[in-house]
Amino acid sequence: MSESAEILCIGTEILLGNIVNTNSQVLSRGLAELGVNVYRHTAVGDNPERLREALDEAFARNDIVITTGGLGPTYDDLSKETIADWFGLPLEMHEPSARAIEAYFGGMKRPMCQSNLKQAMMPRGCTVLENRNGTAPGAIIEGKGKTAIMLPGPPREMTPMFERQVLPYLAKRADHVLRSHCIYFFGIGESTLESQLRGEMQAMKNPTLAPYAKDGEVMLRVTASAPTEAEAERLMEPVIASLRERYPQYIYGVDVDNLQTAAVRVLKDAGLTAAAAESCTGGYIAKRLTDVPGSSEVFGCGAVTYANGAKERLLGVQGSTLARYGAVSPQTAREMADGVRRLSGADIGVSTTGVAGPDGGTDEKPVGLVYVGISSEWLNDVVELRLGRGFDYGEREFIRYLASSHALAQILRAAQSRPE
Amino acid sequence: MSESAEILCIGTEILLGNIVNTNSQVLSRGLAELGVNVYRHTAVGDNPERLREALDEAFARNDIVITTGGLGPTYDDLSKETIADWFGLPLEMHEPSARAIEAYFGGMKRPMCQSNLKQAMMPRGCTVLENRNGTAPGAIIEGKGKTAIMLPGPPREMTPMFERQVLPYLAKRADHVLRSHCIYFFGIGESTLESQLRGEMQAMKNPTLAPYAKDGEVMLRVTASAPTEAEAERLMEPVIASLRERYPQYIYGVDVDNLQTAAVRVLKDAGLTAAAAESCTGGYIAKRLTDVPGSSEVFGCGAVTYANGAKERLLGVQGSTLARYGAVSPQTAREMADGVRRLSGADIGVSTTGVAGPDGGTDEKPVGLVYVGISSEWLNDVVELRLGRGFDYGEREFIRYLASSHALAQILRAAQSRPE
Repeated sequence: MSESAEILCIGTEILLGNIVNTNSQVLSRGLAELGVNVYRHTAVGDNPERLREALDEAFARNDIVITTGGLGPTYDDLSKETIADWFGLPLEMHEPSARAIEAYFGGMKRPMCQSNLKQAMMPRGCTVLENRNGTAPGAIIEGKGKTAIMLPGPPREMTPMFERQVLPYLAKRADHVLRSHCIYFFGIGESTLESQLRGEMQAMKNPTLAPYAKDGEVMLRVTASAPTEAEAERLMEPVIASLRERYPQYIYGVDVDNLQTAAVRVLKDAGLTAAAAESCTGGYIAKRLTDVPGSSEVFGCGAVTYANGAKERLLGVQGSTLARYGAVSPQTAREMADGVRRLSGADIGVSTTGVAGPDGGTDEKPVGLVYVGISSEWLNDVVELRLGRGFDYGEREFIRYLASSHALAQILRAAQSRPE
Repeated sequence: MSESAEILCIGTEILLGNIVNTNSQVLSRGLAELGVNVYRHTAVGDNPERLREALDEAFARNDIVITTGGLGPTYDDLSKETIADWFGLPLEMHEPSARAIEAYFGGMKRPMCQSNLKQAMMPRGCTVLENRNGTAPGAIIEGKGKTAIMLPGPPREMTPMFERQVLPYLAKRADHVLRSHCIYFFGIGESTLESQLRGEMQAMKNPTLAPYAKDGEVMLRVTASAPTEAEAERLMEPVIASLRERYPQYIYGVDVDNLQTAAVRVLKDAGLTAAAAESCTGGYIAKRLTDVPGSSEVFGCGAVTYANGAKERLLGVQGSTLARYGAVSPQTAREMADGVRRLSGADIGVSTTGVAGPDGGTDEKPVGLVYVGISSEWLNDVVELRLGRGFDYGEREFIRYLASSHALAQILRAAQSRPE
């Protein structure tokens, strides 16, 4: 039978809205992939009474409670004390953690306070989780038929500790393995894909298939449960193959995370380079590509040409083109893509020009009208997008993000369509 | 006396980790500014029994419960039914909402299903909250001495509804007004600022002063409670003035949200333009500046020159400079900043070159070494940053973000230092 777990995030800064609680998502996603059910998230402040109350409630509903936060060195960080007390365990100095904390401060060349050593006091008999990105160790505490997993609050510390130490621990508890693959789609709407696949998705038991939509993309997650990893993979293979066969034009990768990673990977594999000329996206394409480690091999040059003068000077767009058709036109998009390819010497040039809003729209060229140009020796095209939705909130970011996604998709298209 | 409220987010996609629960933060921040206490966040799935249980618990602890999600048109969206049932209210067709939904689909030129009209069924006697960015109206339900505020799940719909309709409603319930201002710092650490101001912050009762740190910046929020808005402003004025006097070199703005908005504003006010030449930030500076509506007036041109060839061709960096000092050097940063200023004709040129990692670091030039160049007729400088922390997770994004922040801060510095 599947286990269930509850997530309990501790920190007054969460309740005050000073930070977004991203930890709950990271934990939930990992637990979902293991097949551990999560029925509730809770966040409470750094307050021992309210934390105790939330712990009682969570353990009444579940065998496993995962907490984040409250492991800091200051007087108001009381998670560890409260949780150890729930299990009736005293705190003891954990020498390897004390040494690690000293080494951490030594490496940072910063002075260490005595209060930092409070972070090395751990519940007796717990499994200590090493923190390689901060000073607060985590812990797994088993007792009273329950398990508490205490993790630090900062996502940069919590995420690797969870992925590298907690997930393997939880996987070992289970009598089966759960494996999943993520299939990434671009250019097809969630409702379209869901309506085409609804029957199959509802009929499938193992593996399962579930759709997730975000920012103009759809991801299908296929998940299989089996006694061994190899068996789980074998179950998923035909599902992935049949989707690939059915949607070749929409699937941009499996387990690739996002369009920019897929684009960098495909360019590398093909031995090609790309360059971007951006007007309305204003650097978003370049930013996303260079987010990917190692992107320098395939993306050496981008031009952000918001102003018409910059389009002419940097990219060699004709003044007459701008005058006759305007900056937001297929003609300008084409000359921008050609221009940045010439300028950079890259194999593929991509461009965007459009109206990101909120101002600057006209009846003829409304907010959300974007042209994406693609230039290469074997493929030249301009795609017209209508991304305006009439939102009166957040539409500029929406349009800029989607336009950069379409540009990345065009880079993929060009890289994949090169003749042998 | 202050009211307290609980936030209850509804949606299986939250528990599966498919989305980050940003709504809780937006709601918490707004409630904190109104002086409404929030002691707990909860998230549950689209499951009427578990939602009912969570509602019972939340109303046992508070008079106000704010929910998000579960107002969609499909069979598993049951928040409205469950909450109306808690108050013992039937659902009735709300004609203005039905008309708005029809108009919404008409505007999108998409076919409307009958199930969409389910979204116009509202609890009898509630206050309907209009949704101008989607189809699900929200509602305020008062009864049994309690108040439920139901909001849609998508942040683009939830946020404006909350800010424009719910906050004014809650403010009216209070017998005082709460006003706050946010003072933004860059270049000073949270612990330094906090240790310098701790005594004052602890002694202050009205207004209060609280620090928040994020991604290398610190924000101090000053909040005053008073019978009138003018009175609240009068209480805050001397606090803000004294901070401005004490930290002129670190405060980059009040209520400006972020460095890019401050930079665009200062450039506009000064009638100046800026351009960016980016190597390790790869478009991040341009992306952040062009996030700001109206930035085209002050930022017309950026160059993303990851490759050495691009630095030479676009920016006129000397081959000999690259050969002698390397791409990551103060000399290259200087020539990049000069080059992009010349290329663009802007008043201020800024540049970045560095090692973003995770690979490419050496003993001499480790991951995190970044040079920021600034070029103008009146100020030319190169700043050396050491941003590496040895994180084995997320460090690339950390370095790139901080480097772009420093570059924006240099644009501000240049704009503010122009001689009369």
